[in-house]
Amino acid sequence: MHLLVTGAAGFIGSHTVLELLNSGYTVLCIDNFANAISVTDEHGNAISLKRVAVITGKEVPFKNVDVCDEKALEKIFAENKFDGVIHLAALKAVGESVAKPLQYYSNNLVASLNLIQMCLKYNVKNFVFSSSATVYGPPSELPITEKSQTGQGITNPYGQTKYMMEQILIDVGKANPDWNVVLLRYFNPVGAHKSGLIGEDPKGVPNNLMPYVSQVAIGKLPVLTIYGDKFDTIDGTGVRDYIHVVDLAKGHVKAFDRIKVGKMKEKLKNTVGNVGTEIYNLGTGVGYSVRQMVDALKKVSGRDIPVKIGVPRPGDVASVYCDPSLAHEKLGWRAENGLEEMCADLWNWQTKNPQGFSA
Amino acid sequence: MHLLVTGAAGFIGSHTVLELLNSGYTVLCIDNFANAISVTDEHGNAISLKRVAVITGKEVPFKNVDVCDEKALEKIFAENKFDGVIHLAALKAVGESVAKPLQYYSNNLVASLNLIQMCLKYNVKNFVFSSSATVYGPPSELPITEKSQTGQGITNPYGQTKYMMEQILIDVGKANPDWNVVLLRYFNPVGAHKSGLIGEDPKGVPNNLMPYVSQVAIGKLPVLTIYGDKFDTIDGTGVRDYIHVVDLAKGHVKAFDRIKVGKMKEKLKNTVGNVGTEIYNLGTGVGYSVRQMVDALKKVSGRDIPVKIGVPRPGDVASVYCDPSLAHEKLGWRAENGLEEMCADLWNWQTKNPQGFSA
Repeated sequence: MHLLVTGAAGFIGSHTVLELLNSGYTVLCIDNFANAISVTDEHGNAISLKRVAVITGKEVPFKNVDVCDEKALEKIFAENKFDGVIHLAALKAVGESVAKPLQYYSNNLVASLNLIQMCLKYNVKNFVFSSSATVYGPPSELPITEKSQTGQGITNPYGQTKYMMEQILIDVGKANPDWNVVLLRYFNPVGAHKSGLIGEDPKGVPNNLMPYVSQVAIGKLPVLTIYGDKFDTIDGTGVRDYIHVVDLAKGHVKAFDRIKVGKMKEKLKNTVGNVGTEIYNLGTGVGYSVRQMVDALKKVSGRDIPVKIGVPRPGDVASVYCDPSLAHEKLGWRAENGLEEMCADLWNWQTKNPQGFSA
Repeated sequence: MHLLVTGAAGFIGSHTVLELLNSGYTVLCIDNFANAISVTDEHGNAISLKRVAVITGKEVPFKNVDVCDEKALEKIFAENKFDGVIHLAALKAVGESVAKPLQYYSNNLVASLNLIQMCLKYNVKNFVFSSSATVYGPPSELPITEKSQTGQGITNPYGQTKYMMEQILIDVGKANPDWNVVLLRYFNPVGAHKSGLIGEDPKGVPNNLMPYVSQVAIGKLPVLTIYGDKFDTIDGTGVRDYIHVVDLAKGHVKAFDRIKVGKMKEKLKNTVGNVGTEIYNLGTGVGYSVRQMVDALKKVSGRDIPVKIGVPRPGDVASVYCDPSLAHEKLGWRAENGLEEMCADLWNWQTKNPQGFSA
């Protein structure tokens, strides 16, 4: 199968492309580097994807295209025949989305609407979407299953765009029963490929915990602020469901494996009201606290990681972790890497690339 | 104050423009006639707005502009100085939205995002949005207050677009505390202006109850299908909160009256966390059943209205009606017309314009 991957040069994108290539899929990668500054070489190519080419020994076709640019996107569809798309492209900085909501809504919604439009026009009926645990808002139950409530209490426009895109894709799936739509709800991706050649390269000060922690460990940042240590958790700090990015990437492969063999169509035939849309949590099902994560990275790095305690941020909750059993049952997928691999691989990437892809 | 009104030529738009003009506001009307076929004259002008000019004795400036057309919209903003916008333009056929979800999401979201973008760029900080009772989904409580849950169980993309636009505007309001955003949640607008010169002119077979009933009464349609007569209501048929369109129109005027005198800013100063967004139910607070509505129109028209009973449609619920007291308290607004006026004015419009504006 030949797949279009949007946002392909990013953290999740590059790892996903790698696993797709390793599993026999071919891809066209597009990205506009909206979330990164200097991750292209002097020819405008994505450094992350060039490294994927090194790791896999395969070509990684790439175009610098903004999915919001309807004409540029249509050119891609007119010149290629895709069997499916994996839509990862999105602005993703939670705090920035609160300050610049229109930019987030416009970019993330228009990109997705354009992509769906092209899929309808060019008969591309298999659509895997990068969703997020954020659609659940503050969890109404733990562990979170795919049937847990969504859409209530989401505290930022970034999360809202993910929720809205899910809804739009569910409705497009209903109206087009020959489509296969898979919504993958990521929990907290961390780690890096074992090669240390690709990993997370956040623009500016990291928004997410583990890139921040590793930058403190390596001395780029002075101290980690832990937002709250009075939660009702094992040590008072917030508990989240961290998942190794390679496991997450493999979830996308498994989703297309299922589409490829017609598993979704079978379900469509057998289930009244099934609309060809499936939703999966991608997490480990195990929650770790901030302190546990920090201690684990301390251990693999042998570095000191100074911390200070701040107040919880608006919307912060004690614990978020999922029940990933549906993905195991239907996709034959489960996370294979635990806390130690997540931290070891992150540290390997961090030490080999102290300036990220800009080095 | 000089206001831009989008969707101005439509049912709610034309009545709103009329009331704005009668209250001393000046307007620029735009519309692209997406919901109507032949409601322009031979010069491309909106017949409904020409009649508003007749009724008010004032000029009603109009441009045929699609709010989705960013360049055309920007021209409007560049050439005019607005104090606020009333955003009514949207595709609105519930059933069609299920069949063509992408069209509805694209049109309604992109139009609104464009309009917000222009308001940010041209410093227009007062935004009144046409929302809908549909954002509540199946009511979690009756009467519905503005604090009732929204966003759960909305059964169609049309309703989803209204819900999403509310969320986007709330977030834009948060990020821009000098904005005044008012979300008006319409219940079921019916009736027409007393002159009989403007009213509802649905394209094709009406989607809403009362235009359908009046077309049966006048003989354009043979029979009304009542979708369900076993609900737990006064007579088994569904109960809704119908509101006279002139009352609804006046709600928009009252919203701008409040903005004009700085009432929202006062609240902003005094309330921590208030973000300059206010939400109001616009309904009468009184629910009538389908049979009660049919009987009322029978009475004013003296015509026979044949009915047959069908099964409830997906998502149909027994009763929906609101608590409109917040709008009374804060806006000094309440519905002045009852069931009899709604039906009498509808029938007056229907008999004077049996072919709508196409006659």
